[in-house]
Amino acid sequence: MDLPERIETGLQLALRLSTANGCPPLLAKGLRHAVFPGGARIRPRLCLAVATACGDRDPQAATAAAVGIELLHCASLVHDDMPCFDNAATRRGQTSVHTEFGEDIALLVGDGLIVAAFETVARETLHNPRLTAPLIATIAKAVGSPYGLVAGQAWESEPEIDITQYHRAKTASLFAGAVSAGALASGGSPQDWLTLADALGSAYQVADDLYDAIGLTGSMGKPVGQDGRNGKPNIAMSLGIPAVLKHLRTLVETAADSVPDCAGRDAFRAMIRNEATRLMPKTLSVSAA
Amino acid sequence: MDLPERIETGLQLALRLSTANGCPPLLAKGLRHAVFPGGARIRPRLCLAVATACGDRDPQAATAAAVGIELLHCASLVHDDMPCFDNAATRRGQTSVHTEFGEDIALLVGDGLIVAAFETVARETLHNPRLTAPLIATIAKAVGSPYGLVAGQAWESEPEIDITQYHRAKTASLFAGAVSAGALASGGSPQDWLTLADALGSAYQVADDLYDAIGLTGSMGKPVGQDGRNGKPNIAMSLGIPAVLKHLRTLVETAADSVPDCAGRDAFRAMIRNEATRLMPKTLSVSAA
Repeated sequence: MDLPERIETGLQLALRLSTANGCPPLLAKGLRHAVFPGGARIRPRLCLAVATACGDRDPQAATAAAVGIELLHCASLVHDDMPCFDNAATRRGQTSVHTEFGEDIALLVGDGLIVAAFETVARETLHNPRLTAPLIATIAKAVGSPYGLVAGQAWESEPEIDITQYHRAKTASLFAGAVSAGALASGGSPQDWLTLADALGSAYQVADDLYDAIGLTGSMGKPVGQDGRNGKPNIAMSLGIPAVLKHLRTLVETAADSVPDCAGRDAFRAMIRNEATRLMPKTLSVSAA
Repeated sequence: MDLPERIETGLQLALRLSTANGCPPLLAKGLRHAVFPGGARIRPRLCLAVATACGDRDPQAATAAAVGIELLHCASLVHDDMPCFDNAATRRGQTSVHTEFGEDIALLVGDGLIVAAFETVARETLHNPRLTAPLIATIAKAVGSPYGLVAGQAWESEPEIDITQYHRAKTASLFAGAVSAGALASGGSPQDWLTLADALGSAYQVADDLYDAIGLTGSMGKPVGQDGRNGKPNIAMSLGIPAVLKHLRTLVETAADSVPDCAGRDAFRAMIRNEATRLMPKTLSVSAA
């Protein structure tokens, strides 16, 4: 199986178990709506790419970590779209979960996905018990409080935001978690990959801000111009488009250059540059090439 | 340390880590508000009581499981109180989290507590890796979908509810999880304790319905008469008070009788009967004695 196939098969299994016979029907529909069809699955792909670069010594554990990370990302999108945050009616080109099923189901879908993420890692590492706790601790750190996704989201409710701390928690932390978990699952060293995670996470946040600022739906499939309306910090609005495009290119080069010495180093660097092209808004891609 | 002290110390540590330096201040306040001061901590006490009855072979793991279970219970209360569910302004005699900090923070507090629960179990079982996955899988099953707390809550959003399935998922599952985790942490057999968990979980649900129906705040410290107003199933309203009191006594006796052969069997049975007295609404306790 190639990487995307491992991810989709793993997600299908996790969802089949979470929506098994006896599950309240609306919850089951909401859970599937939140995960399928997916977006670019960039975080789990990154996780598996690092695991592969480190020798892919335990493919089952690496896939479980990748699936757990994607489930947590999906959970955060569902909760982030709710009226008390972005109040977004669409996501990935379809209705958001709360628009389709109501706020009550959306709240529970997010909760259920968080639980399913940790359940998946536990279930799929029973054969290799020494991996379970480190993988779960790494993933939990990336999404929880004080430095993960939950904290990142919470910075939006503060009267004063440190934009670096905010982006680090809201976006970079899950990239770091994906990379670290991929390395751990293959017996590699997470430390060797953290510069890459940090640069790539920042690049994604900057690209997201850029799409929002220039009014393109882009690959995220969500409404644009929300940051300005919601009073959220947006680096593209504060620095201006040309400076931000330059910043984005620097981040991508930093990420590519930081790939440590490993079997598939050149392929990995090519993948990152390729990913970066996909990141750039098409209308700006000539000037940003 | 006695059981309540182990639980409070464990909760304090989990919250200290989740609200460490760098945590967004409102999130940190919300997290603490959701967990302290606590309620009766019945689920973690049950977990530790079972672990003790099974020999308490790994106190650190048992305490972590108990703490994880209580954090998940607190998370469910925070989300359950939100406007899209019970819309409850108070909980445990103080303002509910969303009333005090807003819906955005309440949503994140619940998410953060779910993550912290699994993080705690992972961190505190690093010394005994064979426990991590079984404990996390057991706890996740109790709170997730399709048969745990999340599913129980989701039944409330369905046009038709099977009340047995609803109560089993919403209340009994976490009692089963607490008991199973306590047994697992001490190398005992979760199967031996499931009748007890089931009966005690049902007793709690029935008592909760009873308090709501007769209009007493009771030990739950939340607004009463909500089930009728919110159109939620309530066994006390459908069977009538006398029949429900009888049912409650039967459940408590079933729980006490089912305690398996273990070192502290008599003490355990006494604890259950004692707990039952605390459960009964005071104005009804004479007739229910």
